[in-house]
Amino acid sequence: MRVILASASPRRIELMRRLFKDFDVMPACGEEKSEETAPDKYVIALASAKAFEIEEKVKDSEDEYIIIGADTVVSKDGNILGKPKDSVDAERMIHMLEGDKHQVYTGVSLIVNDSMGRRNIGFAEKTDVKFNKMTREEIIDYINYRDENGSPEWEDKAGAYAIQGYCSKYIAGIFGDFYNVVGFPIAEIYRRLNFK
Amino acid sequence: MRVILASASPRRIELMRRLFKDFDVMPACGEEKSEETAPDKYVIALASAKAFEIEEKVKDSEDEYIIIGADTVVSKDGNILGKPKDSVDAERMIHMLEGDKHQVYTGVSLIVNDSMGRRNIGFAEKTDVKFNKMTREEIIDYINYRDENGSPEWEDKAGAYAIQGYCSKYIAGIFGDFYNVVGFPIAEIYRRLNFK
Repeated sequence: MRVILASASPRRIELMRRLFKDFDVMPACGEEKSEETAPDKYVIALASAKAFEIEEKVKDSEDEYIIIGADTVVSKDGNILGKPKDSVDAERMIHMLEGDKHQVYTGVSLIVNDSMGRRNIGFAEKTDVKFNKMTREEIIDYINYRDENGSPEWEDKAGAYAIQGYCSKYIAGIFGDFYNVVGFPIAEIYRRLNFK
Repeated sequence: MRVILASASPRRIELMRRLFKDFDVMPACGEEKSEETAPDKYVIALASAKAFEIEEKVKDSEDEYIIIGADTVVSKDGNILGKPKDSVDAERMIHMLEGDKHQVYTGVSLIVNDSMGRRNIGFAEKTDVKFNKMTREEIIDYINYRDENGSPEWEDKAGAYAIQGYCSKYIAGIFGDFYNVVGFPIAEIYRRLNFK
């Protein structure tokens, strides 16, 4: 049984190690956007596009496979925040989020093809995240912060922050699965793969 | 200003890096137990014992310092769970926790001695953690799991689990500060050090 993660996110690759001893990583191009406006439907649509794209590539050569696609957005007051375009966009996002609560949605698409046939399920998991207030200096300090690889922490992150990084000191608390914010809802994926 | 963590916990040392560029680690022996029975008072008492113990060692040689002591327990149905004694004790704890919600309390003692004088505050932060059900095989698999260092994950952890490790696939969600479960409440420590 070949297990494939349809994503190149280093966070998702790390989380996959907690679920599977062996798996392959096949990044999908996916869709840039979905026409869905509800955040849960939006992320399920984008996650499904990634998983289906990879299935097209492997289905003729593999008998049995599990493919996992995922997509994460931040939802704040009816706005869907994806990855920031640049540092100005990142600063705008952090300013929207600080001092308040928002929702993180990760959509997951699971395709399982084994001796029982082919099944596909899509679901979205929501986690509430509450930021403490940040001063203007703290926001600028965060935008300018560079991680051990010299990269901005906001880069390539939905909502322009990493809950598992330097940003954690501003996060008062969450309600839901922490890993849903990091990359994908590990407990729900594990449960669905085992008990469906 | 010398900053000292009164703990040798690798998780707390990692979290300290998100708060301070430079700090020292001075493990305190602390007290084995407190006579307090309420979990919040219990962890504040043990955290304070650690911070005060280190302050005794440095106060004659240092003009200005910040000392941070912390202690974590799990509370389940009125029982306080500390670190497991052995694998049998760890298995007993996981069996108590699986399929239900429990509380994690971390007590923090902050001692600040600077040009404004000496202040000490103690507080406890609570995080609710909900475990999914685990089968007997899953519990045994978890107890037998060894991390990259070859150590059992349950070792040296209050309640016999690491929310940031292999156990994460069984954790349906939390309510509160994730890092309060990992080692200490990073956001609340940051807030108290900045705004008091």
